[in-house]
Amino acid sequence: MKIALCQLNYKVGDIDANFKKISDFYSKAVSENADLAVFSELSICGYPPQDLLDYDFFINKCKNAIDKLVEISGKTSMIVGCPMPSRLNSGKKLYNSAVLIQNNKIMGVFNKTLLPTYNIFDEYRYFEPCEKYSIAEINGHKFAITVCEDLWDINTSKLYRTSPMEHLSKLDPELIINISGSPFSYNHVEERTELMKKNALKYNLPLIYVNQTGANTDIIFDGGSMFIDSKGNVISQLEYFKEDFKIIEWEKNKKYLPAHKNYKNDDIILIYEALKLGIKDFFEKSGFSKAILGLSGGIDSALVTVLAKEVLGSANVLPVLLPSVFSSAHSIDDSIKLCKNLNIKYELIEISSIVDSFEKQLKPVFKNSLRNVAEENIQSRVRGTLLMAISNKTGHILLNTTNKSEAAVGYGTLYGDMCGAISVLGDVYKTQIYKLAKYINRNVEIIPQNIIDKAPSAELRPNQKDSDTLPDYKLLDEILYLYIEKLLSIEDIITKGFDEKLVKKIIKMVDVNEFKRFQVPPILRVSDKAFGIGRQMPIVGKIN
Amino acid sequence: MKIALCQLNYKVGDIDANFKKISDFYSKAVSENADLAVFSELSICGYPPQDLLDYDFFINKCKNAIDKLVEISGKTSMIVGCPMPSRLNSGKKLYNSAVLIQNNKIMGVFNKTLLPTYNIFDEYRYFEPCEKYSIAEINGHKFAITVCEDLWDINTSKLYRTSPMEHLSKLDPELIINISGSPFSYNHVEERTELMKKNALKYNLPLIYVNQTGANTDIIFDGGSMFIDSKGNVISQLEYFKEDFKIIEWEKNKKYLPAHKNYKNDDIILIYEALKLGIKDFFEKSGFSKAILGLSGGIDSALVTVLAKEVLGSANVLPVLLPSVFSSAHSIDDSIKLCKNLNIKYELIEISSIVDSFEKQLKPVFKNSLRNVAEENIQSRVRGTLLMAISNKTGHILLNTTNKSEAAVGYGTLYGDMCGAISVLGDVYKTQIYKLAKYINRNVEIIPQNIIDKAPSAELRPNQKDSDTLPDYKLLDEILYLYIEKLLSIEDIITKGFDEKLVKKIIKMVDVNEFKRFQVPPILRVSDKAFGIGRQMPIVGKIN
Repeated sequence: MKIALCQLNYKVGDIDANFKKISDFYSKAVSENADLAVFSELSICGYPPQDLLDYDFFINKCKNAIDKLVEISGKTSMIVGCPMPSRLNSGKKLYNSAVLIQNNKIMGVFNKTLLPTYNIFDEYRYFEPCEKYSIAEINGHKFAITVCEDLWDINTSKLYRTSPMEHLSKLDPELIINISGSPFSYNHVEERTELMKKNALKYNLPLIYVNQTGANTDIIFDGGSMFIDSKGNVISQLEYFKEDFKIIEWEKNKKYLPAHKNYKNDDIILIYEALKLGIKDFFEKSGFSKAILGLSGGIDSALVTVLAKEVLGSANVLPVLLPSVFSSAHSIDDSIKLCKNLNIKYELIEISSIVDSFEKQLKPVFKNSLRNVAEENIQSRVRGTLLMAISNKTGHILLNTTNKSEAAVGYGTLYGDMCGAISVLGDVYKTQIYKLAKYINRNVEIIPQNIIDKAPSAELRPNQKDSDTLPDYKLLDEILYLYIEKLLSIEDIITKGFDEKLVKKIIKMVDVNEFKRFQVPPILRVSDKAFGIGRQMPIVGKIN
Repeated sequence: MKIALCQLNYKVGDIDANFKKISDFYSKAVSENADLAVFSELSICGYPPQDLLDYDFFINKCKNAIDKLVEISGKTSMIVGCPMPSRLNSGKKLYNSAVLIQNNKIMGVFNKTLLPTYNIFDEYRYFEPCEKYSIAEINGHKFAITVCEDLWDINTSKLYRTSPMEHLSKLDPELIINISGSPFSYNHVEERTELMKKNALKYNLPLIYVNQTGANTDIIFDGGSMFIDSKGNVISQLEYFKEDFKIIEWEKNKKYLPAHKNYKNDDIILIYEALKLGIKDFFEKSGFSKAILGLSGGIDSALVTVLAKEVLGSANVLPVLLPSVFSSAHSIDDSIKLCKNLNIKYELIEISSIVDSFEKQLKPVFKNSLRNVAEENIQSRVRGTLLMAISNKTGHILLNTTNKSEAAVGYGTLYGDMCGAISVLGDVYKTQIYKLAKYINRNVEIIPQNIIDKAPSAELRPNQKDSDTLPDYKLLDEILYLYIEKLLSIEDIITKGFDEKLVKKIIKMVDVNEFKRFQVPPILRVSDKAFGIGRQMPIVGKIN
């Protein structure tokens, strides 16, 4: 039996485009004599559809697309993901379903049981869990069709009270199929493969896993669809971070040669690829092609410039140098050197005269108060306003360059350097940014070494350094990681050997800056715990 | 039996303060010879605790507070709300529990079954639903103890597949107790009372309902706790929008005289009270006392000024007039008149010189392009920067004055007039704003009539009017309400008799401005469907 794994990049809500993509790849599968073409979770509507699912017109559009797939279907079966009305007289109105279509008929609808509702997931917001289990019969073979999280209860965390595969395995399936919408995070790639292997081994069944690829706003999907034999060997694996199509020859009890691993399990390379895909799809799916950003001479904006150039091309990236009286000469020289290395044109706008005009108008209010963060923030907001003005005038989309360490401790100015349509590095710690820069420079110096070597500074007052108010980034990032990703308490972190005063200071900075993070752009998610919908903390309230 | 209804205002995460408040009111109940004191849902930790629930240290803090309540408890029982470890070997780690304490012992833990996961609610993110039902025995009486949503399945929508009261009613309770964290919306107040009456009638049981009051960031709780007899009569009702304490004399089969309704079921008055409570708690719970805002001469900022003055006092509100060359004379005069009416000092800062300095620096980039939205937004962002500068310098907190109609169609400038720590009117349609102004002026002209009468304008170009780009607000708000609150499709709305071209234009404006709304401050929620966590739409994606 020939099974086509269709790993595609869907756009949320664009049902016509998603339908076309599915039908094109179905045709391809047919032309290659496949018996079955498998598409990913909610492929009809894109994942995550969010509150579009609350609109009846949207559910009807999805249903119409299914009807059209039924019309074009022949003896080659297909499995597509779609929100389907539950038709129950109580409970949520929808199921998250895998729909099996063949010969102009819906042959079966298999509903998701385990509805992830944690971190970035909120499926219980929309869906009723499956309670009745059935086996799919395709060309005389019995398949256990599952949807994404349905196979994740094999995990040690035991988040669910029921197990769909425990039910399905009693119905004598010959193969497990899992259609998935499993987002990328840098430590999720290996975990996911291991978990699928465990399923194959536990149930002694081969497993076909079809994930989507592409990014929808902040959420990045890395693909990596695969076929695993019943011994837990990965026999075939599809590409990471791009669309892919592969036909598997499956026969009952067939023996296979394991494949070589086709991805580098290196956090930094994975993050690099994920960020590029995130930028690419943010622009492509929004219909934009040109980016603008402020180039400060620091490593964060340099890195974003490189990533944007990689994705959009030199002609479509507009870095703007915005020096003030506090900017060091090397900030400008280094930035210009970077632009030359990348063959990018830049603009340079001095901000001092604008800052002066603000201070002049504010003098009657500020009187003779000492200069403080108010004056520093004016500089940052003047820059934000200039970048947005050029963005509004030219249609270049503003890329935010804040990193995760800064976002965590609130080291940034709302409506200033925290502006932007999308935050490229908001889920990348500063220590990871250095590693990304090193990776980018692995063959040739693209980011001037001086940008990497210099002490980080916001340059908002004379001789300012990040280290004036923050500890060394290595130390800072370790504490942040334990608090944000590992959910440790202040006491737990101190017990691990960190300085008590420092830990308390850092965590307090994280806690009091929830209000700032609430207003930041969507952040490309590359870790298990990104700021945004995946981490919802009170703004007014007491955290520690 | 004397039952004390304790309707209190809790702060999310401030477990020490919440414990103190609960123990104080428990003492009051004891001193008034109550047999039982009832506190609201998750009263120990405040509602909604959000992802604080993911932290073990936080759950331990809650547990310690319960231990301390056990210590101080005597023969007067108490029921408090607390997240409690589930102790199951699978499923979510917590229950949303009502804990019954008496005589230094936990007498019972009653877990919530129906976990709202829609709109602003996300309880399935944290909690496992109850599956085992038991009756509480207090001083020889049998009580059915339920938590908030547990009684809402009597609703016609049938959102749940199980009904806790169906189980509990079989265990012969004499009284239903419901501890609640039920947020305000202007059409929710009456609905809630009706629904509780239905429960009393359906199960032929008296019902004690204890809600919380106060606001936690954007979510406002209106209180309105009540006692209903088994015939569905409201016998006693507590205050709205404030803390209250009342002792009910309950005896089995006792006959009661129905109470008079103690709230005015008038949307506008309810919204007015809710917004004041929202502002009050945002400041009080954050430890701030002073507010700043831009006063444009329009009705929105005038209304916010009045509300802020009502809550914080004249001395703590700083309106700033920020005229440009496009500002009409009446904008300034009207604003000054409002400040005089309110006895508030104001600042006036001309923005033209700053705007000019921006335009001068941008000339090499803009060249001879026609003036457009880019120049308009500069003005708005200069105002935002000035307000934030004064905020940063003086510690006044910036109130955002965007209304729901504007927020819906994106009629506002990101990082300009969309700045602020809290959006006061972001859930109030423009047509409701006129009604609020009228209500405020009901006895004496506080908001100058000219502010109410003038045609709305952003005054960002000569003779600009909102009506240049938007339809009449009455028409606009009707269309927005059908799309946002009623979830109707474009076709449905046209079918109701609205102009096709207009409907399509408006809905498109709503859809393409998701990116703006993503970056706005928290919005005080007064409707069933506020922008924010309760309405999550894709930013990159196709909606219609």
